[in-house]
Amino acid sequence: MQHTDETEITMATIDLNSDVGESFGNWTFGDDAAIFASVSSANVACGFHAGDPRQIRATCEAAAAAGVTVGAHPGYRDLAGFGRRFMDVPASELTDEVIYQIGALQGLARAAGTEVRYVKPHGALYNAIVHHEAQAKAVAKAVAEVAPSLPLLVLPDSEIRRAAESAGLRTVTEAFADRAYTPEGRLVSRREPGSVLHDLDEIVEHVLRLLDGKVRAVDGSHVIVAADSICVHGDTPGAVAMAARIRAALTDAGVEIKSFA
Amino acid sequence: MQHTDETEITMATIDLNSDVGESFGNWTFGDDAAIFASVSSANVACGFHAGDPRQIRATCEAAAAAGVTVGAHPGYRDLAGFGRRFMDVPASELTDEVIYQIGALQGLARAAGTEVRYVKPHGALYNAIVHHEAQAKAVAKAVAEVAPSLPLLVLPDSEIRRAAESAGLRTVTEAFADRAYTPEGRLVSRREPGSVLHDLDEIVEHVLRLLDGKVRAVDGSHVIVAADSICVHGDTPGAVAMAARIRAALTDAGVEIKSFA
Amino acid sequence: MQHTDETEITMATIDLNSDVGESFGNWTFGDDAAIFASVSSANVACGFHAGDPRQIRATCEAAAAAGVTVGAHPGYRDLAGFGRRFMDVPASELTDEVIYQIGALQGLARAAGTEVRYVKPHGALYNAIVHHEAQAKAVAKAVAEVAPSLPLLVLPDSEIRRAAESAGLRTVTEAFADRAYTPEGRLVSRREPGSVLHDLDEIVEHVLRLLDGKVRAVDGSHVIVAADSICVHGDTPGAVAMAARIRAALTDAGVEIKSFA
Amino acid sequence: MQHTDETEITMATIDLNSDVGESFGNWTFGDDAAIFASVSSANVACGFHAGDPRQIRATCEAAAAAGVTVGAHPGYRDLAGFGRRFMDVPASELTDEVIYQIGALQGLARAAGTEVRYVKPHGALYNAIVHHEAQAKAVAKAVAEVAPSLPLLVLPDSEIRRAAESAGLRTVTEAFADRAYTPEGRLVSRREPGSVLHDLDEIVEHVLRLLDGKVRAVDGSHVIVAADSICVHGDTPGAVAMAARIRAALTDAGVEIKSFA
Repeated sequence: MQHTDETEITMATIDLNSDVGESFGNWTFGDDAAIFASVSSANVACGFHAGDPRQIRATCEAAAAAGVTVGAHPGYRDLAGFGRRFMDVPASELTDEVIYQIGALQGLARAAGTEVRYVKPHGALYNAIVHHEAQAKAVAKAVAEVAPSLPLLVLPDSEIRRAAESAGLRTVTEAFADRAYTPEGRLVSRREPGSVLHDLDEIVEHVLRLLDGKVRAVDGSHVIVAADSICVHGDTPGAVAMAARIRAALTDAGVEIKSFA
Repeated sequence: MQHTDETEITMATIDLNSDVGESFGNWTFGDDAAIFASVSSANVACGFHAGDPRQIRATCEAAAAAGVTVGAHPGYRDLAGFGRRFMDVPASELTDEVIYQIGALQGLARAAGTEVRYVKPHGALYNAIVHHEAQAKAVAKAVAEVAPSLPLLVLPDSEIRRAAESAGLRTVTEAFADRAYTPEGRLVSRREPGSVLHDLDEIVEHVLRLLDGKVRAVDGSHVIVAADSICVHGDTPGAVAMAARIRAALTDAGVEIKSFA
Repeated sequence: MQHTDETEITMATIDLNSDVGESFGNWTFGDDAAIFASVSSANVACGFHAGDPRQIRATCEAAAAAGVTVGAHPGYRDLAGFGRRFMDVPASELTDEVIYQIGALQGLARAAGTEVRYVKPHGALYNAIVHHEAQAKAVAKAVAEVAPSLPLLVLPDSEIRRAAESAGLRTVTEAFADRAYTPEGRLVSRREPGSVLHDLDEIVEHVLRLLDGKVRAVDGSHVIVAADSICVHGDTPGAVAMAARIRAALTDAGVEIKSFA
Repeated sequence: MQHTDETEITMATIDLNSDVGESFGNWTFGDDAAIFASVSSANVACGFHAGDPRQIRATCEAAAAAGVTVGAHPGYRDLAGFGRRFMDVPASELTDEVIYQIGALQGLARAAGTEVRYVKPHGALYNAIVHHEAQAKAVAKAVAEVAPSLPLLVLPDSEIRRAAESAGLRTVTEAFADRAYTPEGRLVSRREPGSVLHDLDEIVEHVLRLLDGKVRAVDGSHVIVAADSICVHGDTPGAVAMAARIRAALTDAGVEIKSFA
């Protein structure tokens, strides 16, 4: 969370980000139009795990019209698996695959009258670079080579954060609106019971705590989690409603929803 | 052909262009390193008909090292057909598919320390936009939207030339080193006998005539063909040798091989 | 329509067919479970325009459980275009692409405890082989080479029907539940107004006329249209409802919905 | 190695297998025609890591003409990585992906006048199922469901061998002509020095030892390695020459090169 001082008033701000542009050809996915009403940052698919050129461009246009910041959401080259299957891609190939995707999105964003302002990897790649040092360095290298001014949106305790900072990139940390945390401040594995929060009141409470830089862990302890952005989902009607509810709760609490970029 | 005046000497110059970067993953195609010794402009595959990110980047690096200008070579989305099968892609989809490819190449060229300086469509798309007005306009629109300062490399008498000029784009015309021409100044269809020249002496003679803005047509008549660039092939050992022979003949004739961009 | 004699009663039967299995990876399409309640034949996507192996198999299992006959629904190799963009595929390539798809579906159908019993091409390929003689022959050759006992589901007046019959294949003709016909018995082009019927009562009337081997053309005249199968759609909630309505109307009229295979 | 008794003479036989059909579209790979002169079994690519329908069929036709047995060579869905990058594919998806590939090849083999007689997974999938129990079971399940009479060609000490035998499948073991072995009878990792043999005399000696069911390990000890088939490569001119040399040495030693299937 960021605090912006204007004379004597401190207005709290937070970014909400969500994955969008994940339709492909004749297949639609998610409700991007609805989610744009709630979030400030849009992680736009780049064509390797989802997103065809026409839909990517339309997504950029819609984001721009809604005042939502466009970020690149590169993934593994795996349409059939939606980028959710880990791939043991050698580092040099991965760097170039990520550059290719960011460049492609930059082209379509430009045509849509906007531009790419950050990078957040997708799915199995996102998960891998939390701990996979070679892939983390490969992703950081890609951003450093193609667009070094762009921040990377990362988990606070991750190889990608360390790799990005070593590469001289700005990092922005994120937390998840509907995920439980361990006492060490990490995400509870999806394989564990209770890893995903479903109760809307509980989720709102969790998000409001995040604004103060902490969460209540699964064991009831309080743990520090510093996040500049909160990730919300938009791939189901329930997810869209949850995002709207979170936005409303934040607004009620006097928090401004605003991109970090 | 262009003439550059420096005090009293007029030095004739011409561009030689060739398709490169058309390997994919484990499969190699053409001898890019050899062709870079002969040409001044490299039409680099953008991933839809050929070219994976690693090879595209390596091609851009090699072109930059050899002092060869990088151009985008977008094609239909058809790896299995190498972009050589006409696809009836609606105009709006085609525009975005071309933007995507140009943007991706721009990203990789940037990472390679160079930049994209022109656009020349590939294969069946190149052939279609000679006469297919909707696809020609779609390609011109793509360039105008993503990189309006880039010239389009085109056939002199073509829908794409008209569409590009209507869109306010610069066009650069090209002729083919090894193709026979009709008395109307068009390419003899590949389905006709004698459409492709094979004799090296004949090809050199043909290229030298092109410098004077004319060719000898299949019926023996002379026809005006104004070309700023000559396309040579590099996909076989014979093609590479032909390109080297053409370069040598041009150099012997006091013509400088130089990019138009 | 077929008439099956049992002692003195003639029971009219007709086949209803629909496209299914057109999800891909994380993307779903259509409501196959619902459509299986209405149709007797399932045109199952084979992976080139839609359908990943897991979904194709699940579709075959669901069809078998519902007593619906499985047919192969091969298309152009064009996931991004859902097989709806004409591709100028050379005949020999097309034959092998169709064989590949039929073979793949046969494998998955076998694993699902059923088998492929007919072939109906998809989308732009279906449309092309109505008039494109080379592609029509290529498709007929494919079926003749890989599974000569399978009938091809075709438009009555089409190159594919002629090619299939020349190749010694059985053909089964189909009509469309929601398409208007010309006085010549052909489909009104989708580019013409009124080409698609939307009124459910009108559609039911149209289908019931088809049982008698005729339709009322757009000019009001009656025209002979002999169809062994009627194609219904299942890709929208409205389409599923329409299919259910057609089934109910046919059943009320004493017509049995039954596969031709 | 197998011994076939005919009255009083025992004729030793061994199978030589090689990967073929790994071209794709415009890209060629390997020299299949040359390798068919040396081997008895052809592992034919099935389209997911390499092989387009036309080339797959042509490969089956050439194998049949050369009297070489056709086997299915399924891989991960990864054309860009040639199936050499491990993919964490869930077991149920992998089973259906392997069935799809085997079915597709069966269709093309049938059209080519031959049939698929065994299965050998490719590349990173081959390596994974040596130790990855879930993927090994998924592959075995695929073969059991689509073609339970086909043997699986496997490493002697591997999860896939155990999974296949549990599934009631026949297994055939293979060794590698140009790979060094550990004292435990396993392959020396490619990351270790000396893992790949290059000296032709050494390779021939290694292969002849394999006929007696043993090899000399990297530490000089002798170790039992029972192999029904020996894998040779055909992807470089040197590899083709090596295969020819191995065939000649085996023939000189009175060993018949003969498929196990």
